[in-house]
Amino acid sequence: MTQLNETHDPALTSWVASANAPANGFPLQNLPFAAFRRKGSQEAFRVGVAIGDAIVDLAALADAKPGAPFEGAAQQALQAGRETRVNALMALGQPAWSALRLALSRALRTGSPLQGLIAPLLVPQAEAEFATPAQIGDYTDFYISVHHATAIGKQFRPDNPLLPNYKWVPIGYHGRASSIGVDQQFARPVGQQRPAAEGEAPQFGPCKRLDYELELGVFIGAGNALGERVTLDQAESHVFGLCILNDWSARDIQAWEYQPLGPFLSKNFASTISPWIVTLEALAPFRVAYTRDAADPQPLPYLSSAANSAEGAFDVRMEVLLTTEQSRAQQQAPAKLSASNFRDAYWNVAQLVAHHTVNGCNLQPGDMLGTGTLSGPKPDEAGSLIELTQGGKTELKLPWGESRLFLQDGDQVLIRAHCEKPGYPRIAFGQCAGTVLPARV
Amino acid sequence: MTQLNETHDPALTSWVASANAPANGFPLQNLPFAAFRRKGSQEAFRVGVAIGDAIVDLAALADAKPGAPFEGAAQQALQAGRETRVNALMALGQPAWSALRLALSRALRTGSPLQGLIAPLLVPQAEAEFATPAQIGDYTDFYISVHHATAIGKQFRPDNPLLPNYKWVPIGYHGRASSIGVDQQFARPVGQQRPAAEGEAPQFGPCKRLDYELELGVFIGAGNALGERVTLDQAESHVFGLCILNDWSARDIQAWEYQPLGPFLSKNFASTISPWIVTLEALAPFRVAYTRDAADPQPLPYLSSAANSAEGAFDVRMEVLLTTEQSRAQQQAPAKLSASNFRDAYWNVAQLVAHHTVNGCNLQPGDMLGTGTLSGPKPDEAGSLIELTQGGKTELKLPWGESRLFLQDGDQVLIRAHCEKPGYPRIAFGQCAGTVLPARV
Repeated sequence: MTQLNETHDPALTSWVASANAPANGFPLQNLPFAAFRRKGSQEAFRVGVAIGDAIVDLAALADAKPGAPFEGAAQQALQAGRETRVNALMALGQPAWSALRLALSRALRTGSPLQGLIAPLLVPQAEAEFATPAQIGDYTDFYISVHHATAIGKQFRPDNPLLPNYKWVPIGYHGRASSIGVDQQFARPVGQQRPAAEGEAPQFGPCKRLDYELELGVFIGAGNALGERVTLDQAESHVFGLCILNDWSARDIQAWEYQPLGPFLSKNFASTISPWIVTLEALAPFRVAYTRDAADPQPLPYLSSAANSAEGAFDVRMEVLLTTEQSRAQQQAPAKLSASNFRDAYWNVAQLVAHHTVNGCNLQPGDMLGTGTLSGPKPDEAGSLIELTQGGKTELKLPWGESRLFLQDGDQVLIRAHCEKPGYPRIAFGQCAGTVLPARV
Repeated sequence: MTQLNETHDPALTSWVASANAPANGFPLQNLPFAAFRRKGSQEAFRVGVAIGDAIVDLAALADAKPGAPFEGAAQQALQAGRETRVNALMALGQPAWSALRLALSRALRTGSPLQGLIAPLLVPQAEAEFATPAQIGDYTDFYISVHHATAIGKQFRPDNPLLPNYKWVPIGYHGRASSIGVDQQFARPVGQQRPAAEGEAPQFGPCKRLDYELELGVFIGAGNALGERVTLDQAESHVFGLCILNDWSARDIQAWEYQPLGPFLSKNFASTISPWIVTLEALAPFRVAYTRDAADPQPLPYLSSAANSAEGAFDVRMEVLLTTEQSRAQQQAPAKLSASNFRDAYWNVAQLVAHHTVNGCNLQPGDMLGTGTLSGPKPDEAGSLIELTQGGKTELKLPWGESRLFLQDGDQVLIRAHCEKPGYPRIAFGQCAGTVLPARV
């Protein structure tokens, strides 16, 4: 587990003034990573660290004269940040990430002698565009909200919503890495859907039940070799950080295709993430106890430890917002559809890594694990439309007069996440934005 | 569809004498691709093309003096072959692959003026070791043998073995790319298995029902952009070629984990492929009609075309062999467990690509699609032990006196594949070899 250190001192301020505004979310205590370039340019993407409204260009900093602004492990980590994605830095491991965080914290702190070197290298976030922060080799999606699993299960099996394995196995499946992007605008998927009547041919056409899923993404930093298990208490040292994830789902395609081997074309047409990875070290002040209800079984030994129980969960607040063609034309504020908290998940980050590798499966730097839909215990904490509309039966009213059962063309889903507590600067994840375009038929 | 051309002339012979031996399988008409280096060296892997018992080192050929041995598209393709994997060549597209094949065919042909240039660059296959031929970004596994799906389904649902979607949807799911390798030796996976009695905790330990799966792998060459559908008749131009695949399966872990989202830890501990990719162009003489039983529905329009029906299937013969610690100590010949033919599959290569992209999912050069277990219609054509032993109930006798229900530690599974017909040289895929090591507990 990450200990608190000088980078977490809530009194620290930055010479980048915007970072010190209480609501900014990218204070000196955050320092998340992205891959960016100047908007509209044909430059290669490069690694950046957010500070206030700006981005520190790590490649430019590494190349700045006089050279080698940092020392030792921090300088080595900075050099790894010269790639087009964060993978090389991820591969260096937690001590390197921590050394770079400390060096950046000191360099961006009020009064730093490096201000003169770094200030000219800052890029305004408003002038940047982003790619996926890492080259994602493999993408695994889990299913860690018992509230989501129960709500979905109820729609299929009212008397027995949770399958017998749920409270023992962190259920997961492999997803599609190639179609993950940031700020995605994607065509409504086309495909087969259930026959209108038994014995008939399947229906074929644009998805009619297109949904979002509110998730977080867990980026693997250091990998493990094939055959080598990662123990629960080592697991977090393999995790670089978290982002926001929207795992779009075509519910009608899914219902027809998913037996017996799981979701496929219903998921792999697009998966949108936020540009920024917030490191586990930045989240350390927001660790909370990992607990289970008294009625639930204790995890098997490979998924249980005193340290994990003490602080294996994270208090991350998330919300889903929607805009539509109409709302944008009328300049309405986005409608808030729901809010939930990562701490309510049935399984936690370290457990996902330990489970994923218990059979010897190798994780690699840049791999992403999705949490699955993070619905909370209350009905208005549901992380998908299929839950909020009771399976597409109850219309969701939007403030400007429209309503939705599922997503319509032109709809834009925004997911935001942040951590907050009294006496500590707000730590933001930024925004995960995606827009549905008409099907290509 | 690929037309036959001068590279398919069965009368052609090579100045590499071993290529002309009838049983060799790597004649001038084959020319498969791999990534190789000299055994035990720390060299970078590089792309090679098999000819007889030797390998043409494409990087060495590209660098040979006098330079530019080929012209135009063939020379450009040769340059792309200078990478450590085949991906860059794959990305160039079918005309480039075809130009390189023609140039290599002429260069390796008896009487070629390039013999003097190339002969010193050949590496004996016996002195080489191999990596995965491509960097595999995403791996999808299908389920295209109706015989396998029926046999497995019968074990769960004797009265209704095939689910209603099977004959309409080429069922597929995402697999794990990171754990794919060649010549793998892997530890028996450990994990959760069903509780011994209802209401008890799951069992945990080494897999007791470890199985192989006889499959072929389909390597994507040219990709498609996210949102762009690949039509059935364009599909094969996106396919670089085929290899052999053994998709190892932990049946007891699978039975407990796979509901509701599909197989996960039961599959991702290892997947073994053969080193060589045989191109679709090399397989052109072995195309056969794609047919369905009269009782089966015709595919939906996006999965059906006259050209695909005429020659969308391939006549590829496969067999599974087993050696054990005992058989190797006694120098027994490998036991043949089963044999089957790719032509008996319910779906074909082009259909898999068209289905995978119908929703806009993007495929990338080097992605691999597994066929799923290729069991044939007869009981002795079953492609897995769970079929051959009726769910682990009937012992399979081995010629040297041992028997098996599932794989034991030390067991080595060999899968071989080839094409043959009168008047044409045998086209071999080589061998896919993997060995089970004891669990790490």
